[in-house]
Amino acid sequence: TTSNTGIVLTTGYRLSFVCSVLRSAPPCSKFFSVKHTADVQYSINPPRSEADHLSPIPLNDDTVLLFSMKKASEEENDNKLSVRYYGTDKKMLGTAVLHLTAVEISLDVDADRDGIVEKNNPNKGCWKWGPDGHGAIILVNCDSERRWRKLDHEQDFIDRESDLKDMTTMVLRTKGPAKLPEGYKLTMHISQGDAESIRFEILQQTKQADQDSLRSKYPLILQSACLSAEVLYRRGFAENKFYVEGIRFPDKDFDGLVTINLSLLEPIGPGIPETPIFTDKVVLRIAPWIMTPNTLTPKEVFVCSTTDNYTFLKEIRSFVAKSGHNLKICHEYMNRGDRWMQDEVEFGYIDSPHQRFPVVLDSPRDRGLVDFPYEKLLGPDFGYVTKKAQKEDVNSLDSFGNLEVSPPVTVNGKKYPLGRIIIGVAFPTAAQGRNMTQVIQDFLWAQKVQEPIALFSDWLCIGHVDEFMTFVPAPDKNGFRLLLASPDAGYKLFKSLSKQGHGNATLFDGVETETPRPVDDILNDEELQDHNNYVQSCIDWNRDVLKRELGLDEGDIIDLPILFKLVKEDEEVRALAYYPDVVNMLVLGKNLGIPKPFGPKVNGRCAIEAEVCSLLEPLGLSCTFIDNFASYHQLLGEVHCGSNVRREPFDFKWWNMEM
Amino acid sequence: TTSNTGIVLTTGYRLSFVCSVLRSAPPCSKFFSVKHTADVQYSINPPRSEADHLSPIPLNDDTVLLFSMKKASEEENDNKLSVRYYGTDKKMLGTAVLHLTAVEISLDVDADRDGIVEKNNPNKGCWKWGPDGHGAIILVNCDSERRWRKLDHEQDFIDRESDLKDMTTMVLRTKGPAKLPEGYKLTMHISQGDAESIRFEILQQTKQADQDSLRSKYPLILQSACLSAEVLYRRGFAENKFYVEGIRFPDKDFDGLVTINLSLLEPIGPGIPETPIFTDKVVLRIAPWIMTPNTLTPKEVFVCSTTDNYTFLKEIRSFVAKSGHNLKICHEYMNRGDRWMQDEVEFGYIDSPHQRFPVVLDSPRDRGLVDFPYEKLLGPDFGYVTKKAQKEDVNSLDSFGNLEVSPPVTVNGKKYPLGRIIIGVAFPTAAQGRNMTQVIQDFLWAQKVQEPIALFSDWLCIGHVDEFMTFVPAPDKNGFRLLLASPDAGYKLFKSLSKQGHGNATLFDGVETETPRPVDDILNDEELQDHNNYVQSCIDWNRDVLKRELGLDEGDIIDLPILFKLVKEDEEVRALAYYPDVVNMLVLGKNLGIPKPFGPKVNGRCAIEAEVCSLLEPLGLSCTFIDNFASYHQLLGEVHCGSNVRREPFDFKWWNMEM
Repeated sequence: TTSNTGIVLTTGYRLSFVCSVLRSAPPCSKFFSVKHTADVQYSINPPRSEADHLSPIPLNDDTVLLFSMKKASEEENDNKLSVRYYGTDKKMLGTAVLHLTAVEISLDVDADRDGIVEKNNPNKGCWKWGPDGHGAIILVNCDSERRWRKLDHEQDFIDRESDLKDMTTMVLRTKGPAKLPEGYKLTMHISQGDAESIRFEILQQTKQADQDSLRSKYPLILQSACLSAEVLYRRGFAENKFYVEGIRFPDKDFDGLVTINLSLLEPIGPGIPETPIFTDKVVLRIAPWIMTPNTLTPKEVFVCSTTDNYTFLKEIRSFVAKSGHNLKICHEYMNRGDRWMQDEVEFGYIDSPHQRFPVVLDSPRDRGLVDFPYEKLLGPDFGYVTKKAQKEDVNSLDSFGNLEVSPPVTVNGKKYPLGRIIIGVAFPTAAQGRNMTQVIQDFLWAQKVQEPIALFSDWLCIGHVDEFMTFVPAPDKNGFRLLLASPDAGYKLFKSLSKQGHGNATLFDGVETETPRPVDDILNDEELQDHNNYVQSCIDWNRDVLKRELGLDEGDIIDLPILFKLVKEDEEVRALAYYPDVVNMLVLGKNLGIPKPFGPKVNGRCAIEAEVCSLLEPLGLSCTFIDNFASYHQLLGEVHCGSNVRREPFDFKWWNMEM
Repeated sequence: TTSNTGIVLTTGYRLSFVCSVLRSAPPCSKFFSVKHTADVQYSINPPRSEADHLSPIPLNDDTVLLFSMKKASEEENDNKLSVRYYGTDKKMLGTAVLHLTAVEISLDVDADRDGIVEKNNPNKGCWKWGPDGHGAIILVNCDSERRWRKLDHEQDFIDRESDLKDMTTMVLRTKGPAKLPEGYKLTMHISQGDAESIRFEILQQTKQADQDSLRSKYPLILQSACLSAEVLYRRGFAENKFYVEGIRFPDKDFDGLVTINLSLLEPIGPGIPETPIFTDKVVLRIAPWIMTPNTLTPKEVFVCSTTDNYTFLKEIRSFVAKSGHNLKICHEYMNRGDRWMQDEVEFGYIDSPHQRFPVVLDSPRDRGLVDFPYEKLLGPDFGYVTKKAQKEDVNSLDSFGNLEVSPPVTVNGKKYPLGRIIIGVAFPTAAQGRNMTQVIQDFLWAQKVQEPIALFSDWLCIGHVDEFMTFVPAPDKNGFRLLLASPDAGYKLFKSLSKQGHGNATLFDGVETETPRPVDDILNDEELQDHNNYVQSCIDWNRDVLKRELGLDEGDIIDLPILFKLVKEDEEVRALAYYPDVVNMLVLGKNLGIPKPFGPKVNGRCAIEAEVCSLLEPLGLSCTFIDNFASYHQLLGEVHCGSNVRREPFDFKWWNMEM
């Protein structure tokens, strides 16, 4: 009995293909022996001593012969393994001969995150956080190589070759004979779920006439409409390059991990399906969207120009120039009178070992500035992302003055090297409070690397966290201070002024549209004191949350003197800053652009400005007070609400976080 | 200046309420001193030496006075703290007096998982896996205290007092004066998201006339329509009991964790909202649904009675009786001719420190047995869960013969003390394969404690993993063996028979409806050999996956001699067992109920039975061959497909898993 079988054997890399030849031993076989060509190696299970291999070896029911090859074949069937079977009397019963072809196959990515696609990283098939972590990274291809076009990930072809920089390179490395034996083929495949998040193109290395057409040079091979595709086997360590692009960010229903599989299929016979005899896989994570706190270096400052904000614009231009930064003005044709630059967009970025670029998160707020981020920011290496919300779910808390991020902190030993996102919501005891819309909250939480903190901001009419808090850089401690609005500090200042004989000095001094109000009159207003007691208790609540969630102590916090007033709207009593809200400032490095408070003057100087300077200047900060009374404060916002800053990314790489 | 303020102070437990009194110091204050009643304690920040407390203490901008109380008050305002302020010359400028009422409040659950609600566990606010873990547990209240009624969690009232056993007890413990000071109140609240997963009732301790009405004795206080409710403050360590019930299992969009908050609200003034001055919280996890492998002790065996399965029923009854177990027969009026008991339901259980009961997962398959689980299994302490799927998404792979679970395993050091779930899907290289419907897959993965493995089962006509694999108990190694169907083992057996001169012995000997087929005829059928090569390669693929994902070696696997044939349906070529599929067995402890294979007879004994016995009996297993040819095999199923077993839960507690 001689049975000849050709078989492809994948060796080397991950899988040393094994086969228990002895399953097909002739009946009554009691012994066997093995012969093979130089590149074949084998072992017997249970193990035998070396000497036993020389003569016929006893064959039992549990005997398994495992074999593999040392290197890839040069030609098809260039190796051979034969097994002779013997009966009780060592009479030969038959021979089984296997003609062998060895192929090395490896699907490779930059699993060690150094920007280079290494060969067959043993950890490429799983993803681990941290400095000793592994697993490759994909960016959501959310920029646009051409302005005024779709996002790159919304079109299923490569528009410009520069788009490849935004994609993750994947290489199929093969070694073996010139072609695979007849009927064998390689396929690449992804799951339906993963196809909602990634898509990839292959570089066609054919020298076609239409080489110039990027569609034919880089055809799309895997996407949700096509989960599996045959890929060509190319001899040698051919650099078969694939380009993988993310098409959505991590979200509530998507943890960010995707798997790409490669299989070698073996033919069995006509009319019978092929079966996989080898599969390799790589696991990749979609990079999260990352926010940038006030402590990072500014790159660009954005404000709106409107028909009525000339004074503000002049002062902010001078402040930004003095700070040495770049001012970008969004003109009226684009902002349509909507001056709240802080509220329509949040600047962030995405990062990978191979590419990094800024990404703007567009708020579902969608007022006059609705088209600005898509039309003016999106472009080559400037990404865009938004989340659709039901119109009726969107309210003032969805403006991004209500979305901030802390500097890096360590809380009870847990490190947040990229800080923590801060949003404002209703306090849950409220039966009918306003909240940030769920789709945005879900998106923020799903990014994982800046675990959000929910503060209570619904006590404010506008309801934004930037109305009562901000962060400024500091040379000591954590490298920053938390600034909080403080009615208590306000009253303390006013009482002190009264005590010092300045009870007749007036708030709103120099403001055309307001009646100046003496300090003593304010101190005697019991209703205002009640209102501010309430506000202080709301801020105290947030102070406790911030201390706990950011690991701060009292020394990390500075209270700025700000009074509020309560107003009733829609049956709800909520708070507004009584005079310009000095905590709502623009932070450009050590330069602070602060709403000019128009406080009572003592010896010609505003006592509130003086107090703010005395609190902040010891930290090396420089305070510039900007008049935003008529054009912002009276419209219920201030300097911070009316500006926005794109900042340098963190030096820290998000994949090095310990999760 | 004397300012008197009454203030509630919560002490003891989690939060020692602090207040920086010095924020309200009169202007020009340079020194201060503190007096207080016996139960008050205070500290000054930055710290001063003990001696400094005796005389007026220097007051700086950063001076903070922190105070708390040692124990709860007996009466309102029974304690006092006064601060005197002095100017430069130590002349007294004023006194601030605080009248203090201390209350101890704690929201308590069984955070240490011993079945008892301890007092104020410091870890109650977060949830941790493992033997040193913490955090309380909730069951989905998915049983029904009355048969023929809704699931308990589908009705928003307590039907019978016994229902309380299925809920998690939460206790609000308070200590303090007879009532809270005017205007203060306690509220309990949950988030909208958590309200989709839990709901809770409170025990009203009033001795009302309608005490007998469970609706008024245990009114529902929190649910999705009501996220926040005031709860009564009751003096002393009153056992204010709440009963929390889960209303849905962990799923793709729900990680199983919920938070319950308690707040103490302080009034500020008329027309001004209250603010929270203290919040306590507990975090609980919904218990996952857990499957039971073949190695667990059987409790009940289920089979269907149909018009044509008398022989089968007689043999199975005798087998189950011999094994010492309880047989439950589902009669024709209930099964409507649908005999596939394995396929309509999967038995599992849910577990907590306070309660445990079986829960049946009802397949979306929904054929004749559709009403059986709801009508015959659901009842007191027998839960029910199902997942709705789109009708067009449901196919044969959604039957639960395609849902199994391994015994406990350790894989590369990672422990799976509850085993791993096993399902069958299409191999993803297939363009149009069948898969288990996504809602069921999502549910299984979300349970987390038995991390699923997806095998390739779409190569079979019926497409169930139980057609090619099962687990049996073993006295050694991992405590089990994996049995795999093996065409190679089948051919080896048949060749051996031929060699031994039994080439004329026939398969299907004694089967009325089949033509007996000689061994040599089978061996000469090259097409059948091709078919079985294909099947072997499909099973080998799964063998590799199982070895890798369950940490098995060849010695953990036993190959049973089974041949398959390929048939073409809907343009797809798929496999069926050629003779009764002996791996598709019913495992009751050491007793195996195996489909009678009707193999070729040697000396009057079926050679396949003999081979199976020789492979399994050395493990201490007892093989009983059951004739299911006409009533199951010819309808494309076998003993396992036609039966189901409810088993004892694991001794191991799922919350002790290391995740």
